[in-house]
Amino acid sequence: MTNFLETISAPDELRGLEVSKLPQIAQELRNFILTSVSGTGGHLSSNLGTVELALALHYVFDTPYDRLVWDVGHQSYAHKILTGRREAMSGLRQFDGISGFPKRSESEYDAFGTAHSSTSISAALGMAVAAKNKNEQRNVVAIIGDGAMSAGMAFEAMNNAGVNKKVPLIVILNDNEMSISPAVGALNRYLVKLISGSMYAATKRGLDKVLSVAPPIREFAKRLEGHTKGMLGPATIFEEFGFDYYGPIDGHNLDVLVSTLQNIKVLAQTEGPQFLHVITKKGKGYALAEADPIAYHGPSPFNPIVGIQAKPASKKTYTQIFGEWLCDMGEADERLMAITPAMREGSGLVEFEKRFPERYFDVGIAEQHAVTFAAGIACEGLKPVVAIYSTFLQRGYDQLIHDVTLQNLPVVFAIDRAGMVGADGATHAGAFDVAFLRCLPNLILMTPANEQECRAMLTTAFKHDGPAAVRYPRGSGIGLETTGQALESLPIGKGLVVRSISEQLPPQKKIAFICFGPLLYNALSVAKEINATVIDMRFVKPLDEELLCDIARTHDALVFVEDSAVKGGAGSACLEVLADQNIQIESLQMGLPDEYVEHGDVNFLLDLYGLSSEKMKQRVTARFL
Amino acid sequence: MTNFLETISAPDELRGLEVSKLPQIAQELRNFILTSVSGTGGHLSSNLGTVELALALHYVFDTPYDRLVWDVGHQSYAHKILTGRREAMSGLRQFDGISGFPKRSESEYDAFGTAHSSTSISAALGMAVAAKNKNEQRNVVAIIGDGAMSAGMAFEAMNNAGVNKKVPLIVILNDNEMSISPAVGALNRYLVKLISGSMYAATKRGLDKVLSVAPPIREFAKRLEGHTKGMLGPATIFEEFGFDYYGPIDGHNLDVLVSTLQNIKVLAQTEGPQFLHVITKKGKGYALAEADPIAYHGPSPFNPIVGIQAKPASKKTYTQIFGEWLCDMGEADERLMAITPAMREGSGLVEFEKRFPERYFDVGIAEQHAVTFAAGIACEGLKPVVAIYSTFLQRGYDQLIHDVTLQNLPVVFAIDRAGMVGADGATHAGAFDVAFLRCLPNLILMTPANEQECRAMLTTAFKHDGPAAVRYPRGSGIGLETTGQALESLPIGKGLVVRSISEQLPPQKKIAFICFGPLLYNALSVAKEINATVIDMRFVKPLDEELLCDIARTHDALVFVEDSAVKGGAGSACLEVLADQNIQIESLQMGLPDEYVEHGDVNFLLDLYGLSSEKMKQRVTARFL
Repeated sequence: MTNFLETISAPDELRGLEVSKLPQIAQELRNFILTSVSGTGGHLSSNLGTVELALALHYVFDTPYDRLVWDVGHQSYAHKILTGRREAMSGLRQFDGISGFPKRSESEYDAFGTAHSSTSISAALGMAVAAKNKNEQRNVVAIIGDGAMSAGMAFEAMNNAGVNKKVPLIVILNDNEMSISPAVGALNRYLVKLISGSMYAATKRGLDKVLSVAPPIREFAKRLEGHTKGMLGPATIFEEFGFDYYGPIDGHNLDVLVSTLQNIKVLAQTEGPQFLHVITKKGKGYALAEADPIAYHGPSPFNPIVGIQAKPASKKTYTQIFGEWLCDMGEADERLMAITPAMREGSGLVEFEKRFPERYFDVGIAEQHAVTFAAGIACEGLKPVVAIYSTFLQRGYDQLIHDVTLQNLPVVFAIDRAGMVGADGATHAGAFDVAFLRCLPNLILMTPANEQECRAMLTTAFKHDGPAAVRYPRGSGIGLETTGQALESLPIGKGLVVRSISEQLPPQKKIAFICFGPLLYNALSVAKEINATVIDMRFVKPLDEELLCDIARTHDALVFVEDSAVKGGAGSACLEVLADQNIQIESLQMGLPDEYVEHGDVNFLLDLYGLSSEKMKQRVTARFL
Repeated sequence: MTNFLETISAPDELRGLEVSKLPQIAQELRNFILTSVSGTGGHLSSNLGTVELALALHYVFDTPYDRLVWDVGHQSYAHKILTGRREAMSGLRQFDGISGFPKRSESEYDAFGTAHSSTSISAALGMAVAAKNKNEQRNVVAIIGDGAMSAGMAFEAMNNAGVNKKVPLIVILNDNEMSISPAVGALNRYLVKLISGSMYAATKRGLDKVLSVAPPIREFAKRLEGHTKGMLGPATIFEEFGFDYYGPIDGHNLDVLVSTLQNIKVLAQTEGPQFLHVITKKGKGYALAEADPIAYHGPSPFNPIVGIQAKPASKKTYTQIFGEWLCDMGEADERLMAITPAMREGSGLVEFEKRFPERYFDVGIAEQHAVTFAAGIACEGLKPVVAIYSTFLQRGYDQLIHDVTLQNLPVVFAIDRAGMVGADGATHAGAFDVAFLRCLPNLILMTPANEQECRAMLTTAFKHDGPAAVRYPRGSGIGLETTGQALESLPIGKGLVVRSISEQLPPQKKIAFICFGPLLYNALSVAKEINATVIDMRFVKPLDEELLCDIARTHDALVFVEDSAVKGGAGSACLEVLADQNIQIESLQMGLPDEYVEHGDVNFLLDLYGLSSEKMKQRVTARFL
């Protein structure tokens, strides 16, 4: 039997085939994805769910002239495979390999870089407006999940689309009742209602209007009815927003997908914004992933025949350290309220939800709301803990300023994925949080060097009567045990001398490493070699100015070490203090460079950016010794 | 005739009166607001529109135990007057006087500080959840305008409210078809439809259900029907989101307001989230403001009998400089597309909209969408210009990172209200933009010292093939003429020596002011007195490292001057370069302190924060001379 997939190096080759061949290609794609992802690791469930959709889109639309914008983008593997990157899949998410997300610089078929949720409709609307302005007959398609639709940004885009100008925008809702965790919120409940058919029972007054605009659609709709449950309900909220609404249709039926998309493509050019509701199943076709789509959301390499195996016990991740602390603190203080913007698993809240469901709040993909919701809770004397990834906190930045720090409210921010994140790359790298947080009055900002410090800092933040943030990295630390560690605070704004220069063999030049966060251990290994001082600053804000100045006055050079952007980072905070105190000393800043961090292995990247022990030593030697 | 208002120092005194007295008090309040605001300046139209609503809320609810959260908050004057701040209104928005917005530190009646739009439902939901958790029978009311409802944050909060837990939340939609400019977008169109009564014709299947929950409501609803047009339509989107929906009702009829609120108060405790749609008129009761609510949105002091008078021609504001540039550049290059998140007047886009309606996009209060919409446009070879206030850009920060700078897309950010803003205070002060922008790779960031530089920088940004931002202050500059100024770029990353030390009478110590933005002129006047060098750096990023190092090597001390936060600011960028180049020199950073800037006169505040010429001179003298 022909392997069609191997013959397709670009979508126009796909478009030369008959529709009847598509199911076989879908099967080949699905097999390829399973084999490939189980080998490299990467996103699986969502990619198995969108095989037919990706195929149908490239079959119907004239890509790359027509634009596909994949919201979140972790479901774009089939798209990548069909657009000349089949062989490159073996290097997925590896340095110099292809990204796990659409990336404009990687392919002309990647119309818009995505990774954070809910950007697709805005970007696609911009493209559609531009097409109209330039009198181009281009189609622009945003493919967005039901979880992503719950974000305010998607609402803003829907609210803006189509009201002023008729633009050729198509929004495809890929409804699988999940984001990573099960989707929550009123919109999700509404979608379930749509699917269940209760809308279908409503009057069909809009039907004739919609069908009359393009004759072929009428027939198409009749055929469709067999496949759908709630088609063309006239009062969907999407129609209230000015879209024509079609669906829900079966997102794994290629006949239905292709004919629907063909019709909608015509309508978009003449009628403006179109909304297609497609039902897919996460993990489709791979029984283990269908049964547990969360486990197979983003697995490490595994054997597809036996499935993911429980790993041998290894060091706890910082996420686990946080999750344990949250349960312990929640047990000790019933005022604690935990809030997550749709990242129950990623942020380590599974156990807390089980034990304290009344104090657990998954607010959906809604970072803006999450932060101000926490502020409201804090006003009433309870103690909210917002668990959030560093880069997602960027979504709630104004709320952090305007609602939390300006009002000096005691909200704890447990910031995961600070610093480098590895395979997810630039979009997920928490490079900027130190710069954008340390300028905010009233906020305490802590950077643990290890697990025990992390736990102690979370306690410190929780007990502090004002806003406080702890930023900790993806993955595990040095392996310190935290179970049973007392819930005790650290002294606020106090650093720690971890190593002092040995006077037995005094160095030629007295160097001190001023460290913020886990790279302290790389610095420590260098310090042992060159006999230097190592300071664990612990607090970016308030900074231990006294300790810093003491060290500066008793050393010849300072090396600032952090896993965040050098520009505006913790090292710069030290420079400000030294300038203010009029202390002149040589110094060197080590941290993330002024460029977006690539995807790849974290240790490889640390070395690339001069932050491995070896590179640190080279840089210190070159500069000072 | 009794003046009731003078007898009310707290809402419980109000609650002792009969309902029949309320209309008179409303009239007194309206007169008081008009007299007071025309004397002090401040927000007028929106406050005249919410007199009856504020009165009814305090009459029905047990404030401050019950919480009122006023979205945006510039409509809270009646609330302030009724809660013990009648006399303090004479010091409105002045230093040491009361704020123009609700402020927790100002009054126990100000349950939540507001100023930026669309935070109220999130905060109120947090409070309601806390009340439920603490088993308190507290009511929490968010009062939100129709413009503010269009923001994604409000949607996120609606999506989260009431789905998991029944909480005593009441949302009052104060619908006046405007934010500051007329409201735009699909939601607004939907609201108009609700009001026009087309929803009323829909089936009333939800009616009995709603009415059965609380017997008094049935009677109340019957009485209401005379006052409303589209009451209790069963399929409103608010009901789809899990709220009970009532309205629209007349927001100037105190009988209707009081009885409706009394019933809803009961329902919220038993039935969970309630949504009341109230129709008000901006400027109500003052004919001139009713006729032109935009002009009377936030007037300076004026004579209420003759109304706002055209001011004698004075210096152009930076907003005007931008507006003129936008039209000129739009004329010269038809790729220019202008985008505003609902700030047509504030950002200076009125003329552009008139001349180039096809290239003008008011996307609603939707900063997240605005930025990514621009990114989408930029992908297609057009040239988007996003006009946005500094503090509102905080709302689009993740989009600026993830969608614009990471993809290196040519989007221009025209950032108004950078630095201190005066009467609006901390919530609107653009203090942090330098810190949160300069850490971003690929972004060019410029700070004009005067009007001509501002225009040239906007041109520079526009012609640059990558993301670029120009931040300029509220108000006017030194008065340089820009009309007709050629649309020419500045050399990127190059500063300018504005004044060199005169060698005729060489100073004891050679000092150089390294300036970013308009405070250059304060520095210049000091420099003339003490014979110092003055550098106009122009670019925060890329920094003119060569010039900076040259100056550092030829001077004894540097003074960094900026109108943004010192922590992480432009001065810190200079410190980073000097450290990197191993140049040891004394330096002093001048800029905004590590605290939230108060409201008050800008020149007064500049002096307070040590940034007037006089204070600059004192500080330089104390430190270096």
